[in-house]
Amino acid sequence: MLYIDLNCDMGESYGVYTLGHDEQVMPYVTSINVACGFHASDPINMLKTVKLAKKYGIAIGAHPAFPDLVGFGRRYMATSSEEIKADIIYQIGALWALCKSEGVTLQHVKVHGALYNAAEKDMTVAMAIAQAIKAVDKKIFMICLSNSTMVRAAQNVGVKYVEEAFADRAYTKDGTLVPRKQNGAVIHDVNRVAERVLSMVKDKTVTSIDGTIVEISAQTICVHGDTPGAVAMIKAIRVILDQQGVQMKAFGK
Amino acid sequence: MLYIDLNCDMGESYGVYTLGHDEQVMPYVTSINVACGFHASDPINMLKTVKLAKKYGIAIGAHPAFPDLVGFGRRYMATSSEEIKADIIYQIGALWALCKSEGVTLQHVKVHGALYNAAEKDMTVAMAIAQAIKAVDKKIFMICLSNSTMVRAAQNVGVKYVEEAFADRAYTKDGTLVPRKQNGAVIHDVNRVAERVLSMVKDKTVTSIDGTIVEISAQTICVHGDTPGAVAMIKAIRVILDQQGVQMKAFGK
Amino acid sequence: MLYIDLNCDMGESYGVYTLGHDEQVMPYVTSINVACGFHASDPINMLKTVKLAKKYGIAIGAHPAFPDLVGFGRRYMATSSEEIKADIIYQIGALWALCKSEGVTLQHVKVHGALYNAAEKDMTVAMAIAQAIKAVDKKIFMICLSNSTMVRAAQNVGVKYVEEAFADRAYTKDGTLVPRKQNGAVIHDVNRVAERVLSMVKDKTVTSIDGTIVEISAQTICVHGDTPGAVAMIKAIRVILDQQGVQMKAFGK
Amino acid sequence: MLYIDLNCDMGESYGVYTLGHDEQVMPYVTSINVACGFHASDPINMLKTVKLAKKYGIAIGAHPAFPDLVGFGRRYMATSSEEIKADIIYQIGALWALCKSEGVTLQHVKVHGALYNAAEKDMTVAMAIAQAIKAVDKKIFMICLSNSTMVRAAQNVGVKYVEEAFADRAYTKDGTLVPRKQNGAVIHDVNRVAERVLSMVKDKTVTSIDGTIVEISAQTICVHGDTPGAVAMIKAIRVILDQQGVQMKAFGK
Repeated sequence: MLYIDLNCDMGESYGVYTLGHDEQVMPYVTSINVACGFHASDPINMLKTVKLAKKYGIAIGAHPAFPDLVGFGRRYMATSSEEIKADIIYQIGALWALCKSEGVTLQHVKVHGALYNAAEKDMTVAMAIAQAIKAVDKKIFMICLSNSTMVRAAQNVGVKYVEEAFADRAYTKDGTLVPRKQNGAVIHDVNRVAERVLSMVKDKTVTSIDGTIVEISAQTICVHGDTPGAVAMIKAIRVILDQQGVQMKAFGK
Repeated sequence: MLYIDLNCDMGESYGVYTLGHDEQVMPYVTSINVACGFHASDPINMLKTVKLAKKYGIAIGAHPAFPDLVGFGRRYMATSSEEIKADIIYQIGALWALCKSEGVTLQHVKVHGALYNAAEKDMTVAMAIAQAIKAVDKKIFMICLSNSTMVRAAQNVGVKYVEEAFADRAYTKDGTLVPRKQNGAVIHDVNRVAERVLSMVKDKTVTSIDGTIVEISAQTICVHGDTPGAVAMIKAIRVILDQQGVQMKAFGK
Repeated sequence: MLYIDLNCDMGESYGVYTLGHDEQVMPYVTSINVACGFHASDPINMLKTVKLAKKYGIAIGAHPAFPDLVGFGRRYMATSSEEIKADIIYQIGALWALCKSEGVTLQHVKVHGALYNAAEKDMTVAMAIAQAIKAVDKKIFMICLSNSTMVRAAQNVGVKYVEEAFADRAYTKDGTLVPRKQNGAVIHDVNRVAERVLSMVKDKTVTSIDGTIVEISAQTICVHGDTPGAVAMIKAIRVILDQQGVQMKAFGK
Repeated sequence: MLYIDLNCDMGESYGVYTLGHDEQVMPYVTSINVACGFHASDPINMLKTVKLAKKYGIAIGAHPAFPDLVGFGRRYMATSSEEIKADIIYQIGALWALCKSEGVTLQHVKVHGALYNAAEKDMTVAMAIAQAIKAVDKKIFMICLSNSTMVRAAQNVGVKYVEEAFADRAYTKDGTLVPRKQNGAVIHDVNRVAERVLSMVKDKTVTSIDGTIVEISAQTICVHGDTPGAVAMIKAIRVILDQQGVQMKAFGK
């Protein structure tokens, strides 16, 4: 039996501000990445998200970021290794305690936005992330971009990890993501996205933007919950995977 | 053998800003209350404080507060029970993870500033605090002002607790603190403070501002680390307690 | 000719978060209250709002608040007079400069949320607000709740002011607002709201919640732009006022 | 008669946190750069600083920064031109209003920390700063690092500007600052610093780190107020300039 995990960012609302379609998307994914207050969310919203995940039996992960609320963690910040490490431990702990108060556990950590982009290429950043996770709890997985520096950092540090691929993103022939600014970087066609996910899961390959077949290793597929058509896209992915006998399951279970 | 715990606020520095004399005071107390980023401190400073406490073998507690950095958590905020509870769980968790990363545990929670003042009298606030602590970990103590609503809240909720008295604060004949704005509210004479602490520990009494003997129950005594003469005052308290055969020990040990 | 001003809160978006229907509501009001970054908004969003107001020829006011982004300035904070005054001057200045960069002027200041509620009854708070406005520019109007302490504070300090009434809020027989938590505090029927506004403008009276006719003085009427049906309500008010020969005009023009 | 201006960062305290020796340094400089709440300071502290400057007759400038309080604005943030421009206009306005409330004017703007470092080399950043200043008030000077991109940006935009040199920093043979991390980047010897300032003012030259004589144009000299020995260093500079007949005067006067 083939298994795959679908992960999605959640809990990005803040105070009176609402973002994303958490209630609608939650039932269709298997793991969520919960914002921890540095780029989005606040304790009340985090708790609400944990309760929702508990209700649907979804695995929970922390989604730490640079301390940049107004920029939604999307702007690179020149922070030191020590700052990144302490900031991540702080954010993991905050979510851990909210999970504990609801009797659920923390499955993983996936860093957000500009911090994720930095960790793709910068070993120092990726190592700081891996060390932070390991320092808190050796049972917590690190979600790493497949074929990236993050994987090597997780291996070096000896933290548990899974690799992720992106359902709706184009890949280069080297197996890296096509930068968002480039034409064709994001794939909007629902069927094409679903087919790509199937290929990632069954054949462990993806067709790159220039048409070559690239190997990709992924135990979790990232889907987006805040775009128009997000729910339809996720449902379509589930239907095609289901038809092909691929089961949905959180990677930590 | 008589035992007492001395607790002191620590880790209140923030970014480039330094506050308190943590290095000098740490060796003379047995428990510390670490700011968790809402009224003071940041992940780097919290980690530094945890490492210092570990070095000296001091017991660590969380010191959560209203989210008011510019006001240092000293301004009352009309927050709901749910907000207080989630905010406290978040702050406890953040410090818990930093402790975990250093292999030390969390002994207690003592709320800070305006939140402490509210919890003294307001059962709803005090209950929210007790519930937050219990929700995270039943092994964590709540520090409650002796003779206050906080004690009854801890009992109602069924959270472990200790009572605290203030070394340098005057008491009314009802066993409550004389408000800071009132004349004589703070006692500056080192010897008088030390004598009062001795009486609190040995006789479980304190002489009120109008001269009556008041019963007081305290397993921990709060001392201040950020005033001029703080270190001298704490040393004097330790000398007199030592002479009288009272031993220093963190209440959780 | 009778004139009236309709004022509405605007520019409450923050970073990636969107709030309100600014584009749709803007053409139907004559004055806007722009959030200044303490309870909502950020420099980019403030500038966007100023540009929109300029496009439609709408008069701009500052909407300062307690420093409580996560609580949207709706939670009372026990701040000192000096803090309120400095916080308000800071916020006025920030918006003033963004207006200046677009070649438009600042017509008024209306405080937000919990700060407004405090100023209704607390002369110290109301005086701090009036003094802050006067200190920045004697040409700036203070929007004061009709029949409230704010009016007397504006008179005491000698700052220019206008009185405001609420289109969709019930009044007591003393001419004060029925608290939101009370039944019937908010009126949802579009026609009834429009009729009440007409009566406020033409007869300078409003029918209180217990049926008595109460005198009310108002040069501006507050309408809400973030509720469902907001645009329909504002249009209805405009139609009925127009039919009765009441003209819309910003009070500072 | 030769004139020079000495500028110094001030008003960097925040809430209960104190930074710098404002009271002691203020009488010896002619212009100050006041933190505007994004990397340091708050409205109360800004107002206190403006009052102090007024008392001593010192010219006031705004010291805007990246929105990074915990990092003191020292960490580069990948912000857009539009964000930088709006953030700077906001900060200038906030200080402008506090100055206005005290009846004093704003002489200049000097950006802080990582934003200053970015503006030295990055024309897009430098242009955004110059445009922000010009948009608020054409009478406000921009302080530009001598021989840097900032000067060209100020000229392109057509904003008034002065060039600055650093009293205690080593220069390369190209007239740029030796990076702080390099050996010998900061000069601590009081007499040597004073002599260098004299040479900058009288001969418009500075001796570079490799011994060559480099031309430098500076109408203001930056001195530091937060280092140990800061006051002694500034006094020494004043004595030697005074002996050589160079007068101190804010550049805007």
